[in-house]
Amino acid sequence: MKPIVPSSGINRRVLLAIGALLPAWSELLLTGSARAQTTPEGGPLPSWNDGAAKQAILDFVRATIDQSSPSHVAPEDRIAVFDQDGTLWVEHPMYTQVIYCLERVPAVVAKKPELRNVEPFKTVLSGNREAMVKLPIRDLEKILAATLTGMSVEEFNAEARKWLETARDPRWKRPYTELVYQPMLEVLRYLRDNGYKIYIVTGGGQDFVRVYAQQVYGIPPEQVVGTAGGTKFGYAKDGKPFLTKEPKLLLNNDNAGKPEGIHLMIGRRPNAAFGNSVGDRQMLEWTAAGAGARLKMLVLHDDAAREYAYGPAAGLPASRVGTFTPELYDEAKKKGWTVISMKNDWKRIFTFEQ
Amino acid sequence: MKPIVPSSGINRRVLLAIGALLPAWSELLLTGSARAQTTPEGGPLPSWNDGAAKQAILDFVRATIDQSSPSHVAPEDRIAVFDQDGTLWVEHPMYTQVIYCLERVPAVVAKKPELRNVEPFKTVLSGNREAMVKLPIRDLEKILAATLTGMSVEEFNAEARKWLETARDPRWKRPYTELVYQPMLEVLRYLRDNGYKIYIVTGGGQDFVRVYAQQVYGIPPEQVVGTAGGTKFGYAKDGKPFLTKEPKLLLNNDNAGKPEGIHLMIGRRPNAAFGNSVGDRQMLEWTAAGAGARLKMLVLHDDAAREYAYGPAAGLPASRVGTFTPELYDEAKKKGWTVISMKNDWKRIFTFEQ
Repeated sequence: MKPIVPSSGINRRVLLAIGALLPAWSELLLTGSARAQTTPEGGPLPSWNDGAAKQAILDFVRATIDQSSPSHVAPEDRIAVFDQDGTLWVEHPMYTQVIYCLERVPAVVAKKPELRNVEPFKTVLSGNREAMVKLPIRDLEKILAATLTGMSVEEFNAEARKWLETARDPRWKRPYTELVYQPMLEVLRYLRDNGYKIYIVTGGGQDFVRVYAQQVYGIPPEQVVGTAGGTKFGYAKDGKPFLTKEPKLLLNNDNAGKPEGIHLMIGRRPNAAFGNSVGDRQMLEWTAAGAGARLKMLVLHDDAAREYAYGPAAGLPASRVGTFTPELYDEAKKKGWTVISMKNDWKRIFTFEQ
Repeated sequence: MKPIVPSSGINRRVLLAIGALLPAWSELLLTGSARAQTTPEGGPLPSWNDGAAKQAILDFVRATIDQSSPSHVAPEDRIAVFDQDGTLWVEHPMYTQVIYCLERVPAVVAKKPELRNVEPFKTVLSGNREAMVKLPIRDLEKILAATLTGMSVEEFNAEARKWLETARDPRWKRPYTELVYQPMLEVLRYLRDNGYKIYIVTGGGQDFVRVYAQQVYGIPPEQVVGTAGGTKFGYAKDGKPFLTKEPKLLLNNDNAGKPEGIHLMIGRRPNAAFGNSVGDRQMLEWTAAGAGARLKMLVLHDDAAREYAYGPAAGLPASRVGTFTPELYDEAKKKGWTVISMKNDWKRIFTFEQ
């Protein structure tokens, strides 16, 4: 099946629904080549242009690591959280994990032939993209459940890993795992080099992101907080124990779910938070509400030439993913959160660009 | 209110129920003095007598850190998990957190006077221990809900911290946080010094253990996996965000819930696991089922003089906590898990003993 790229005439509401739905469910490894960079000789953040955004990051780190600073944070207390989709890698026009789920359908039907003529699997198998994006939410939930649950955690990891190795983004013709933002990899590296423990806090599936997070971002599985389903412990016929992924939502890690997920999985308030959409609002508010220096950053997708441009906050087209609303923009301005302009703040977007 | 110590004539079934119930609910900081030790000059594990248990730990670490060993584990993949109650600190005759909940009742009633003459609060306020231990499970659930939920996460942490500073175990007349096992602190230190990332995986409340884990065990909040309730994000009148602890169970981290919790919170299989009861069985099985060297250890409470003696596996009295059944003993023998005899393997039990 070819990658799903919606054409321009699609039903936006349904696409929005796909975007909204996915984070409430889901869960890749890869042979990706985009990984944490070594610190360059010219100082940190070499892919960033000088400006307010770069300065905010540098100022925050200096204030929190300087032992004479009133904002000093003990090394063991340094926590930074990053949204993934649209903040660390490309989310437009569709979350990578949604593409994964749709492309997994043929394999699921091969194992369960009784689904071949049953909706929504029939529509997905038809390859008719227009029909696919019009599927109602209940049908999409069935696709997510069928492709993300009902197998052991090892089977899921192996399937996701295999897909990531072979799937290609249709615009850049590269593995999805190469579509990470070089400037953000530099921020991860800079914070890590200064003692920060880094977490991904994503609306996407925890198990999915954990498959590739170490290789792509240098972030181990236990530092990925995402939307998570339950598992069920059981024994194989030979007595060997296994865990089955269940279609039971434990943590909807988006919007208010992000600070709730941070409490569940980390148990303390972060010092720095990076996001790009209304789904990150509460995470930034929760981060900002602590004492001392606080870094609150929002990525604005305003670079149609090098990536994408969307977000009504900046007078750009709305998108079904990463909604940067005028209200969020107002809150950011009012509260002094820093907006990162991909167009103006970043010298380059991707590692593969030279 | 005095600490609750059941007398000998109590209803064991109900006490068992308290024990079984608590892990399915709950969630401190302290001025404890029992912390990770510096490595002594005489080598690791100085409080351990030579024998099979000490040797199993030494052999495992040597095999997994030696790069020429077929069992070598890369430093970033080294994970060790420890049950808490009965494995790292005293659990008998009643889990410390249950004592906390019962002793919190007067403060809860002070804030909500309407509960004063309502059961089960009335009975707990009476101070009648016999009556308290006979409370039905539904009543105990009410006590747990009232004392562990309905407040902000910061309020909970402050209350638990305060209690831990002042509460004293009636046998040793010391803070509960000093009742940790010195030999196990040495194991934590030894594993940590050899690159192991250490997690507590407890049936007790995640939020409760997180309050003191750093100070007592050198384990940060994010490396405590426990029974966890949900939280709810909201805003105070001044607009400041807060998280409220809700009476909603997310993770019952006991028995099969332990490997499920490990998957949720860590996302990969541990190399080493320490427990002491049937609630740890699945965690040890899950740990043992991976490839390469695996350390599986069970603490047996067979030292009535220096601590307690219970566990029908060894012909000792049954206990409502930490049930070491004959079946678990058989499984350990059959599968080559190592049983630690507190009486024979440990030179001393507590840090305060010299």
